[in-house]
Formats: sequence, structure tokens, C-alpha cells
Amino acid sequence: MSGSTDGSARGRVTLQHIADELGVSTATVSLSLRSSPLVAAATRDRVQAVARSLGYVYNRSAASLRTARTNMIAVGFNDIVNPYFGELLAAIEETLAGSGHTVLLGTYSDDPVKQDRVLGTLKEYRPDGMIVCPANGARAASLRDVADAGIPLVQVSREISGVGLDFVGSNDALGTEAALDHLFALGHRRIAIIGGTDAMSTGANRRNAYRTYLAAHGMAVEAALMVEGFGTRDLGFAAVHGLLDLTSPPTAAVCFNDLTAFGVMLGLRHRNREAGRDFSVVGCDDVKEAALWAPGLTTVKNHHADMGRRACERLLARMVNPALTPERIVIEPTLVVRGSTTSVG
Amino acid sequence: MSGSTDGSARGRVTLQHIADELGVSTATVSLSLRSSPLVAAATRDRVQAVARSLGYVYNRSAASLRTARTNMIAVGFNDIVNPYFGELLAAIEETLAGSGHTVLLGTYSDDPVKQDRVLGTLKEYRPDGMIVCPANGARAASLRDVADAGIPLVQVSREISGVGLDFVGSNDALGTEAALDHLFALGHRRIAIIGGTDAMSTGANRRNAYRTYLAAHGMAVEAALMVEGFGTRDLGFAAVHGLLDLTSPPTAAVCFNDLTAFGVMLGLRHRNREAGRDFSVVGCDDVKEAALWAPGLTTVKNHHADMGRRACERLLARMVNPALTPERIVIEPTLVVRGSTTSVG
Repeated sequence: MSGSTDGSARGRVTLQHIADELGVSTATVSLSLRSSPLVAAATRDRVQAVARSLGYVYNRSAASLRTARTNMIAVGFNDIVNPYFGELLAAIEETLAGSGHTVLLGTYSDDPVKQDRVLGTLKEYRPDGMIVCPANGARAASLRDVADAGIPLVQVSREISGVGLDFVGSNDALGTEAALDHLFALGHRRIAIIGGTDAMSTGANRRNAYRTYLAAHGMAVEAALMVEGFGTRDLGFAAVHGLLDLTSPPTAAVCFNDLTAFGVMLGLRHRNREAGRDFSVVGCDDVKEAALWAPGLTTVKNHHADMGRRACERLLARMVNPALTPERIVIEPTLVVRGSTTSVG
Repeated sequence: MSGSTDGSARGRVTLQHIADELGVSTATVSLSLRSSPLVAAATRDRVQAVARSLGYVYNRSAASLRTARTNMIAVGFNDIVNPYFGELLAAIEETLAGSGHTVLLGTYSDDPVKQDRVLGTLKEYRPDGMIVCPANGARAASLRDVADAGIPLVQVSREISGVGLDFVGSNDALGTEAALDHLFALGHRRIAIIGGTDAMSTGANRRNAYRTYLAAHGMAVEAALMVEGFGTRDLGFAAVHGLLDLTSPPTAAVCFNDLTAFGVMLGLRHRNREAGRDFSVVGCDDVKEAALWAPGLTTVKNHHADMGRRACERLLARMVNPALTPERIVIEPTLVVRGSTTSVG
């Protein structure tokens, strides 16, 4: 047959089509497409030109069997609608595009059973590596299964204790301490913590830092002021109503993330109160939206774009040298003070 | 060698390991792993148990060469940080998980050159199909290249005129008319339009509907009231400052998307004005956040989760039957009235 495409939906151009068109062997075509020095430059250029004109597409699946690389990096996240994870994913996708990798995506909504299913599926594609933020309550064995199958894995943002795998994240306790220091200096003595659970590293670290800080500064740790849950706008919105209804309501809250803090700010307005005037709110993450609010959100900046870039760099290093000792790369957060916090009234 | 894994980072278990462990042929192992009726149930169960205990991972790359399917769907989006696209991607990812497909992701920031490069890379992975939201200014040839390579493609949210490929999106003009009808009924006669360009279908459709509506209702179409640009919070924030500084400022604005409208609402507060009191704002999309704002955002609901699901369904139908005639599936938007719009003062 001639090398022209027939226009049918699955009519793919093969090496044979190109070889027929030029009257050369398929080996010559294959070498030319890989720019091998074994083929004369003029032949190579002719083959590449014909391949382009016929719409030949290099087959990564076949190539990956030969080179044992797929150039795919799997990313497993709980939620990509939260702008924190959206922005983190964007940083990862951008960094990996620079190294010629494409992102294979799976999400699991903080459900550890769904996480195991999704990671199992991602594993079947034989990605060159994986970047994972573990689900609430995830077991070490779930991530070990991936690593034991020979797939380099870096944990990002959250980690599973004792799993012995790379981790890139924030110093959660330090961030919470900075937020509490700021509120304490403003005179607040009844401070709530909204969001997070003890079954995720970020939640446990922040809630423990809160308990320790309050005890060290002579404030009682009260269950009613510790609102547990996943960090969503809905949680913040509902929590602030409950907190304001307490006999002795708090005057401030540190939130698990910015999303929760936005919910708190909106809930306050529904109660005719204003963040930064009647109540102080500190977020965590510093998503782009935080600076644009009015008042702007005081928040713990987690440098999540850096976090994404560094997770990619660590993964690429481990792909080159699988024997690297696992590392914990912990980024120092910084408190960004804006208008949502004020002196106790 | 025995079938036990050596624990080295890339030490993958093969069919041969499992065959050696059980003293059966690799053909028996292969058939057993695919649950073939050619193998006795007891043998099959033994093989599968050993495969599991050794940590054998089915190789999708090898399987895809045999079946000519990769079970990957490529998704090309401009931006996943905008919650509209984040929520759309989440709906797509969830729908495709149900049909056993995994999402391969590429983004291109409304840059048509970057789009072509990203789509070219995605194409090399031989996805079973692609879902694409074209970049601002994208050419028909860019999407035709994908389809001509035998990869079924569905356009979502935006479409390229005359490309002759499936499209699932919103009736943009109808949405803009509904927003303008609402503002007109509230007495507004100077209405701005913020965001969108004529080089993307959604922008062109909405800007044209705005021009037509104003002319039909005796309002002059003024360049100063038509703020062109990509739909971001920053654009809305900056635009409202410029509009309020006009000699004869508008009393209301329809926005390209909710993100732009949130920027407008924040910009208003920076000027000591309040949406729904001193100025009326209508968004477009109805992202989850819109209902939580105070005041809530009046917006054109685009039903983007439905849009995502229907794009997946259309793609799956085309994968089964590539000869289907291309369709335009246009979802009717609905106006959701909340507190950000009010009678002209």
C-alpha cells in the first residue's frame, strides 16, 4: 500500500507506511526517527519530513517497553478543587513538563479505601514515579506497595509516620505556633482551632502544636474550641456559627487551611460580624485568593508552589538513583499578616 | 531463580517468577491472570494468590500494545487553578474512573503555541481519547491533527468554529441575555462587560450577545465599558477600579466568569462600595464558592459538572463508534439570583 493515510478514525501511520513511501527498510525509518548516527543526515531528514507529512505519531507505549520508561508521573491527591491542591498540582505539572514528563492523575477524596484502589490503578500504568498526598487515615502499607513494586514515590504535603519514603512538606507545628503567637500578642486568650483531624499528619501536627501552645501559655484546652474535620469552606462556615453560640465564645480562630478560613469569614458576615473587627481569623496555605479578600486573610504561607517543585526534583533524583536514603524535606512556613486579625476588643 | 522479590527499587516481578514459583508454564500464568476459562479454577486461584503475594503488577504498557487500548484519556485545559476548571476536571476524573479510565493531564495557560506542544505530547501516549478546552486563539488544525491521528476528541466548554469535532458546552449567548435581562429589569442602563476575548468561543459569544442586547434595548455600546481579558480575579479587581473612575461610571457589570466577579466584588470593597448595594455584579459558572459569598453571587449557572460528565459520555460513545457524526451538545444555562444584584440606586 502507499503511505498516505486513509482518514479513517483509527488509521494510524506505521513505520511500514513511511518505509514504503520512501523505498527504504523499516530499520532505516526507525533509526532515522531516533536521529541515529547510523543513518546519513540526508536520509534522516527525508524520513523525518515524510513522517511529519503523513502524521506519524511516535508510540510511547511501544517505546516504553524498550526503554522501561513511560515518561509519566502519577499524582495522587485527595481533592483538586481546593485551590491549595489546584495550585500545587499546577506547580507539579509545570515542573514536570520541563523534564519531559506528563502527569497521570488520580483523586480519592480523603477516603483511604478509594486511595488504595486509585494508587493500584495508577501503578498499572508503570509511571516512572509517583507523587502522593496520603488520604486521611491511610496506612503505611498502601504507599509501601507502590515503592515495593519498584516505583519511586515522594509524599507531598502530608506524610505517613514511619513509612520510610521521601517527604516534602511544611513545618506544620511551626506554622501553628506562629499563628498563635500573633493572636496571643494581640491579646486573644480564647482561641479556637477549626479543621484537621488526628488521622492526617498535617492535622495531627497542628492540633498537637495548638494543645502544647495553649498549655504552655496558661490557656485551658477545651474540646468545644477544637472543631475537627476536613478543611472545607462548609466546615468553617458551620463551625463559626457553633462557636459564636457558645456561652463563652472564642475571640479568634486558627484554621486548618485558607478554605476553612474563608468559610469562617463568610459565616461571620452572616452573623453581622466582620473578620478583623469583631473576630480574628488566621488561615493556612496562602492561596492566591487570600490576598484579594477584603479584609485580606492573615495566613501561614506554606510555599506550596516551592513544595511542588521540590517534590518533583526529589522524585527525579530518586528516579536516577533509586538507592538514595529517604529524606524529609521540610519547608519553613512564614506568617503573612493582613487585615483579618486585630487586637481583642 | 526463585520467585521472591529482591526488594531492589526496580526489581519487578515477571510472569516467569510466578511460573517458577509454581512450576507451571508462563502461558498458564498469563491465562490465569486474565481469568481465562482455559485454566482450571483451582490453578487460576493459586496463580493469582502467588502473583498477589509476590507483588506482581499487571503491565498496562504491554497490554495496551496487544489490545491497542491504553485506558488513558488525555485532558487538555488552560488552567486548573480556576475552580470552574478544577470542578470540571474533578467531574471528568470521577466519571472516567467509573469506566476504568485514568486521566492524563496537560495545561497550556491560554497560549496556543504551548497548547500545540502539550497536545502533541499527550498524543504520543496514545490515549484512547482526548477532552480539550481550546486555548485562546487556537487554530482548527491543532485539534484536527489529534483527530487525524486516530484519537477521538471532544471539545468541552469552548469550541473552534468549523473544526467538525464533538463539542459539549453551554449556550453562552443565552446566559449573557439572561444576565442582562435581570439587570435591565432592575433599572440598570449603564452595564459593563468584564472579561473574555473575541478569540475564544465563550468570549466571542458573550461579547456579541452583549453588543446585540444593548443595541436592541437602546443602549449605546461603548468600548470603555467592554473590558477584554482572560477571566481572572486580578482582571475583575483592576477593571472595577477603572470603571468607577470613568466620568459616567456603570452601575452594573456582567462578568466572564465567577472568578472575575469575585475580583470585582473585592475591588468594590477596596473602594468602600458593596456589591448588591452600590453596584450590581453578575458572574458566570456558579462555582461552589459563589453561594457562600456574602452577599451571594448572582450568576449564570453553566452546569459544568454535567458538562464534564456529558463530555465523557460522548467520548466513550465515539471510542466505541468512531463513525458517529460530530455533535454539538449545548446545555441551557440558568440564572441564579443571589444578593450581588439590586435595583439601580
